[in-house]
Amino acid sequence: MSDDSSAPARVASRVQGTVRIVGAGLLGSSVGHALRARGVDVVLADASPAQLRLAVDYGAGRLPADDDRPGLVVVAVPPDVIADVIQQELADHPDAVVTDVASVKLEPLRELRRRGADLTRYIGSHPLAGRERGGAISARADIFVGRPWVVCRDGETSAADLAVVEALALDLGATPIEMSPEEHDRAVALVSHVPQIVASLLAGRFVEAPDESLRLAGQGVRDTTRIAASAPELWTQILGANAAPVVDVLDRLADDLSAVSAALREPDAAGSRRAVADAIRRGNDGVDRLPGKHGQNRRFESVVVMVDDTPGQLGRLFGELGELDVNVEDLRLEHSPGAQFGLAEISVVPGAVRRAVDGLQARGWKIASTND
Amino acid sequence: MSDDSSAPARVASRVQGTVRIVGAGLLGSSVGHALRARGVDVVLADASPAQLRLAVDYGAGRLPADDDRPGLVVVAVPPDVIADVIQQELADHPDAVVTDVASVKLEPLRELRRRGADLTRYIGSHPLAGRERGGAISARADIFVGRPWVVCRDGETSAADLAVVEALALDLGATPIEMSPEEHDRAVALVSHVPQIVASLLAGRFVEAPDESLRLAGQGVRDTTRIAASAPELWTQILGANAAPVVDVLDRLADDLSAVSAALREPDAAGSRRAVADAIRRGNDGVDRLPGKHGQNRRFESVVVMVDDTPGQLGRLFGELGELDVNVEDLRLEHSPGAQFGLAEISVVPGAVRRAVDGLQARGWKIASTND
Repeated sequence: MSDDSSAPARVASRVQGTVRIVGAGLLGSSVGHALRARGVDVVLADASPAQLRLAVDYGAGRLPADDDRPGLVVVAVPPDVIADVIQQELADHPDAVVTDVASVKLEPLRELRRRGADLTRYIGSHPLAGRERGGAISARADIFVGRPWVVCRDGETSAADLAVVEALALDLGATPIEMSPEEHDRAVALVSHVPQIVASLLAGRFVEAPDESLRLAGQGVRDTTRIAASAPELWTQILGANAAPVVDVLDRLADDLSAVSAALREPDAAGSRRAVADAIRRGNDGVDRLPGKHGQNRRFESVVVMVDDTPGQLGRLFGELGELDVNVEDLRLEHSPGAQFGLAEISVVPGAVRRAVDGLQARGWKIASTND
Repeated sequence: MSDDSSAPARVASRVQGTVRIVGAGLLGSSVGHALRARGVDVVLADASPAQLRLAVDYGAGRLPADDDRPGLVVVAVPPDVIADVIQQELADHPDAVVTDVASVKLEPLRELRRRGADLTRYIGSHPLAGRERGGAISARADIFVGRPWVVCRDGETSAADLAVVEALALDLGATPIEMSPEEHDRAVALVSHVPQIVASLLAGRFVEAPDESLRLAGQGVRDTTRIAASAPELWTQILGANAAPVVDVLDRLADDLSAVSAALREPDAAGSRRAVADAIRRGNDGVDRLPGKHGQNRRFESVVVMVDDTPGQLGRLFGELGELDVNVEDLRLEHSPGAQFGLAEISVVPGAVRRAVDGLQARGWKIASTND
């Protein structure tokens, strides 16, 4: 692990005393666990006494006391109440830097401006971390490790306060990225909010489909619609709070969709075939730009191995890959409906494909396919 | 393995003599390998002498001879030329049952009817199998194992001929599913062709996005756009051949999209918030209907383990899960960009979560999170 969670907290050298976390759900409690692991005094608050008690019991922080003087307040409440809570915290703690971890940044800032809040001490931020399930029980100190954490500069931001929030991000193992609130909101509209809508609407089309049709679903459509399982309440709030940038991307997507639709409707029209090919080719170029190993798939080759669906089979497979000195760069397991085995698709560097295939076959594994 | 590839071929008991495969690419060559493994005499043909030579060298079948009398012809050529080749094969081999493996079924059938071809011996079929890369070199006998294989009945289909193609599917380890050509084409429009367009158009929106925005991309958008890496030439042909059913789904999707867009544009209008929530909720219901382990995620709990990015780590992890008698139902590896470790998300039955978490922690693993 590259995590140096035993080092003293950077944030403690920049602000005095306690860190106060308002909202003891998944993100707030996870920040609490991570800071406490570094010896920071963490005070928790939550509108729900039950959620607060749970978070304290799980060790995310302590209950507030009358003489608490927080140097940093982290607001981790739902989008609907974010501006109210930030305004209240700025008023209650006149010496503290106040940040929040909400997934939309411009709308709360505008709302605070409308209300005349003192924004010189407020720095919006957004850790790109989360989990399918929320709540204090799901909280973990390390959900931020290796993730981007956007810290929003705007006209009123002081460099010292920006440094406090970046220190918080670094303490939690995240990578701070400075952006304006507008840049942030446009970015998440594109890479998070619109993909959510698209996946949900596509999956919504399955509701009335015949069972038989859905039996033909393969891994492609499963991947495309996986995030359609997300929580409706939270997403309604997020999409509502970032409506303008989301609508902007949706409009362009609707134009793209109707262009492909028009081309397919008139297959013999000039340029019709080319319009469809260009759309697919543009998608090739776009997906290539995504960072991370999944986005750089083409650097790796796939080896697909058949594995029985019993305990220990994957252990044996990966143990033997270790013996063969083959590093698994990525892995995807696929099960055939009703079959007693699955396919393990292993990504390895091109130079290791031959070694992996020959070595595994010599040990009795069935190789379903390789991309060579 | 449940594969009984050593048993005699079912197809050999239903048709006399040789099986002729036209088109020695990925699917055709894979059918060849699988039938030869069962002792069937396979003859290959391909418009490209180089591709044909390669497929023969790799063992997918033999070159044609003057006295070949195929009982079954499998046409595995690109969508653009499928009707031409089927018509030719029906004429050249008046005693053979002719099938094809193209991913669109109605358009070739209509074209053959227009030309007055004798369709009593033609049965369209479609194995839902494939790989990211094509060609004879990528062919494998077992790419069909456990996959659905649609066999199309229509007014002219004889039961005996239908049984021949179903025997072929069973011989290759696939699960035959009977559908009309119309049902098939509507189903693949919904679960394959439209998801491809949606993923491509969404990824296409990344082409002009600032680098900084794309740094915020997480696993969700990577999954949603993974299939955007597909080949433009093949997909242009597929989409063109199934235009009407695809346009039908695209139109409904465009309506859904503009409803969400309108609701976000007028956040204070009556029912606006509810329209957004309903779209996300409908997506929940739709994705739940997909079969297979991925579609039934909710039956499993996730355990997320941090693993170093070095050979042998996954081997050790899976070996120890085997010792703990924990069966891994599904697995997803995620790498943080630039980090020296990854997160392995393991799906297990609910009753095994505690055993997995406690056992792994006792052995020194860091558990990033569980969905409990």
